[in-house]
Amino acid sequence: MTLETKSRWRSFGGTQGVYVHDSRATGTPMEVAVYVPPQAEAGPVPVVTYLSGLTCTWENATTKAGFQRAAAEHGVIVVAPDTSPRGADVADDDAYDLGQGAGFYVDATEAPWAPHFKMWTYVTEELPALIAANFPADPVRQGIMGHSMGGHGALTVALSQPDRYRSVSAFAPIVAPMDVPWGRKALPAYLGTDEAAWARHDATRLMRARGWPRDILIDQGEADGFLAEQLRPELFATACREAGVDLTLRLQPGYDHSYYFIASFLPDHMAWHARRLAG
Amino acid sequence: MTLETKSRWRSFGGTQGVYVHDSRATGTPMEVAVYVPPQAEAGPVPVVTYLSGLTCTWENATTKAGFQRAAAEHGVIVVAPDTSPRGADVADDDAYDLGQGAGFYVDATEAPWAPHFKMWTYVTEELPALIAANFPADPVRQGIMGHSMGGHGALTVALSQPDRYRSVSAFAPIVAPMDVPWGRKALPAYLGTDEAAWARHDATRLMRARGWPRDILIDQGEADGFLAEQLRPELFATACREAGVDLTLRLQPGYDHSYYFIASFLPDHMAWHARRLAG
Repeated sequence: MTLETKSRWRSFGGTQGVYVHDSRATGTPMEVAVYVPPQAEAGPVPVVTYLSGLTCTWENATTKAGFQRAAAEHGVIVVAPDTSPRGADVADDDAYDLGQGAGFYVDATEAPWAPHFKMWTYVTEELPALIAANFPADPVRQGIMGHSMGGHGALTVALSQPDRYRSVSAFAPIVAPMDVPWGRKALPAYLGTDEAAWARHDATRLMRARGWPRDILIDQGEADGFLAEQLRPELFATACREAGVDLTLRLQPGYDHSYYFIASFLPDHMAWHARRLAG
Repeated sequence: MTLETKSRWRSFGGTQGVYVHDSRATGTPMEVAVYVPPQAEAGPVPVVTYLSGLTCTWENATTKAGFQRAAAEHGVIVVAPDTSPRGADVADDDAYDLGQGAGFYVDATEAPWAPHFKMWTYVTEELPALIAANFPADPVRQGIMGHSMGGHGALTVALSQPDRYRSVSAFAPIVAPMDVPWGRKALPAYLGTDEAAWARHDATRLMRARGWPRDILIDQGEADGFLAEQLRPELFATACREAGVDLTLRLQPGYDHSYYFIASFLPDHMAWHARRLAG
């Protein structure tokens, strides 16, 4: 797996890089941003993957979330992949919530998406192997976080692989895609009519079916315009309570869905992951 | 002076706003970003103005520098104005380093710039009055910082008004515009052939002529592609030494001219200003 360096910047004593590689999962070139903190000079460090939301690439979080300061403080590698395959030969849709920029972290089975939209395999298999092979990462100390559609990705990826991910948190995640318009549109488009396939990508259903052996942190802005219709964190909170899982769901007055919200609470999330990934 | 709110976000317990107002100085609408920290609820707090570089607006620093976290930590208002007047009726140039986005913080006297390019008056008179009238700002505790062309602005503004600005710092500033291509192009374009007018906007000449009653902090990336030709901090360092002024000039190995560089050292700068603006 050859990783080509697209950009590199010194940042908080470490290195923020943007790399491109030919993905076997998606059959396209994929860009990924990786921050390596100064502590990695002394040996392998934990890895936290950050999954972005609708319309985003690696760039939104990497330029606007301020994660480098927190990652350098705690000695954590941060991996920020794209949200879908891209390119002129890749299927797309005029809507912002389907197609390029809206991969929903699933392996599509339906036309026209199936040939390239394999973000589940990309994020859960190819990307961890790529990071392990190319960076001073400790593969047994992995956490995952994400925002909105990326919060959906982080929760579903972690709940499906509790042995790989020690820690999971999210900012304003889509927690019940089967019950909200974004998911009611994307899941059938990508996965067809099989509701069992949808349920494997619904954090609330996964929590009911499988539970989670550790705790979970979610921050949600109360002034988030998507809260009532698309996010509905109470559905996930109920599932966690019924499963006996320790969910910290913090409703943050006045905060919206933007990167100003994410940046405000990212230091807490990074510290939270670092404590769970220590040692 | 009516200030219209364009956007407002909750950020680190405070408020990041973007406002627009009709500027008497430039004769155009001007946008300005203002971060108000949570401490301002208890009474007036110090103000630090951040001046941006070529091609930038309020947005670059406001989204990418991470200053909100540091400002909330220290209880400082941060004001980030645009770098020039803008609009279809405002003169411009195809080059990135002249015209809109490149005001150089001077009052232009030459055609076609003179009608609107009054960034000196805007930053030193109109903007401080606007902030004092509309925000919980303590006008006697003001600092100023900037990047590149904005570092030039911060240094020249502070050195010209030592009674107004208690603290000044810069990231990769243009310190001697009369000796570098950016300034050799912009100063005659905006100010004509009078070299005395140029010298009033050259931090190295101002330091030689007037000195500065306090200390100064500058960070400069050693991997900055503009360092040798456009920035030349050694010229300012020499002038400070000869004037007996305590300049801390930190050359940062591996860092370039980007916001990754600025973000990395902005926490230090904000702490540095906060100490000098305390009490």
